[in-house]
Amino acid sequence: MASSSWLQRGNNRLQGLLLDISGVLYNSGVSGGQAIDGSVEALARLKKAHFPLRLCTNESQCSIDTLVKKLQRLGFNVQEEDIYSPIKAVKSFLIENSLRPHLLVHPDVLDEFVDIDQSNPNCVVIGDATDAFSYAALNEAFTILMNMKQPKLISLGKGRYYQETDGLKLDVGPFSKVLEYACQIEAEVVGKPSKTFFMAALAGFNINPEHFLMIGDDVVSDVGGAQACGLRGVLVRTGKYRPSDENHPQVQPDAVVNNLAQAVDSILQ
Amino acid sequence: MASSSWLQRGNNRLQGLLLDISGVLYNSGVSGGQAIDGSVEALARLKKAHFPLRLCTNESQCSIDTLVKKLQRLGFNVQEEDIYSPIKAVKSFLIENSLRPHLLVHPDVLDEFVDIDQSNPNCVVIGDATDAFSYAALNEAFTILMNMKQPKLISLGKGRYYQETDGLKLDVGPFSKVLEYACQIEAEVVGKPSKTFFMAALAGFNINPEHFLMIGDDVVSDVGGAQACGLRGVLVRTGKYRPSDENHPQVQPDAVVNNLAQAVDSILQ
Repeated sequence: MASSSWLQRGNNRLQGLLLDISGVLYNSGVSGGQAIDGSVEALARLKKAHFPLRLCTNESQCSIDTLVKKLQRLGFNVQEEDIYSPIKAVKSFLIENSLRPHLLVHPDVLDEFVDIDQSNPNCVVIGDATDAFSYAALNEAFTILMNMKQPKLISLGKGRYYQETDGLKLDVGPFSKVLEYACQIEAEVVGKPSKTFFMAALAGFNINPEHFLMIGDDVVSDVGGAQACGLRGVLVRTGKYRPSDENHPQVQPDAVVNNLAQAVDSILQ
Repeated sequence: MASSSWLQRGNNRLQGLLLDISGVLYNSGVSGGQAIDGSVEALARLKKAHFPLRLCTNESQCSIDTLVKKLQRLGFNVQEEDIYSPIKAVKSFLIENSLRPHLLVHPDVLDEFVDIDQSNPNCVVIGDATDAFSYAALNEAFTILMNMKQPKLISLGKGRYYQETDGLKLDVGPFSKVLEYACQIEAEVVGKPSKTFFMAALAGFNINPEHFLMIGDDVVSDVGGAQACGLRGVLVRTGKYRPSDENHPQVQPDAVVNNLAQAVDSILQ
């Protein structure tokens, strides 16, 4: 179990939390997914204690509105403003950089981009498109990139896979690799583990990163990404967690806990 | 245009040829594809001169029988024994290593594997599956690999893309990357540019590799792969060739020719 050093680091007392959603709050799945044991109550206790927190997700296979409703149906006390996702981040990024995307994303999130100019695309945005990752769709995105003088690919995360109720599912990362390898380019990642993304998720709290903790089930994107930004990173043994994650060659979590409930017990003690 | 050094290297006179098929003989496409200008006659002249040659392809989206018939319909004088492909190679490899594959290949080549034990798979074989590269099929292969103690992935080539009559198409390489990245493994490549594959393609000729020349439109798999085995490698400006291939950071072709016809003119002079 976790030592207490992750709660108190020198004078840096823990003052805020970033929580991953999939694999920490719930496991997604065909019929809306399933809450992870104890997570509904754990989030409720944090909210009751007014503990500063944000849900920091790489979710890009549904709109934020849909995600909020899905979590609420499972019993979570969650509002839209609690969530920071790559969809919010990439929209700002596209506008700031005058980019017109070709979208290779899940059909359910296309609506989020209706106010973005998509004519004559000068970049490709790839999200967790699941079944929309057809050969034809990947080939179309590839061809568009190859016709650009400087192919620009923006990836909503680089996760390898996630846990659904009926098994492991390929995340956006592997499909980003299709286009990276085919075009010999490197995608710009909007979402965890990008530093910009973590920093944007913390904005508005007026708390230093050193006082923040990220809890997630992805040892690289959640734990390693947060640590690289000065936050502490705690790995949960839920979601896509595998025992080998505790001996990851690059990332050493500040603590490993059985689940969110156990982490929250320690935090609110 | 090519200097003559690629025909005569010291005392090593050119004595045999390996020819790529797609992009050198023809461009594949929906209605059987299209012969590249001059290639039907060039191959006929080589055959008439009894010049030792083999068609060395990474083609894995149809059976060898289908490929032969397709080429014959386009006018090429080609028999099955002229062709060396990764399908032949991988079958020997599977049998020699007691491997039982889960096949992620084009439906049209499944028949080639009917005599191979596919029960309780201990490896995944990935070929150029084109439209069969669905999210579901990739996820299935991924799950099978993740359930193996030592995941083993065998890829029929690592090409990035090829030219069809209606545009560039993603090859097997990018989809191999999906599974490599998701499982954090490296695929074993059967096909160009693997040394084993080139050497097997030369078997039976009784000619040293130094006397052989590979002609292809893939600067890495064809030209670089052949050169790494001691052959000379010539790049054609047909198929998926792009001008930037002539300044490839790793591979410098022994010569660049406009097309197969031009190369054969020089060879038979």
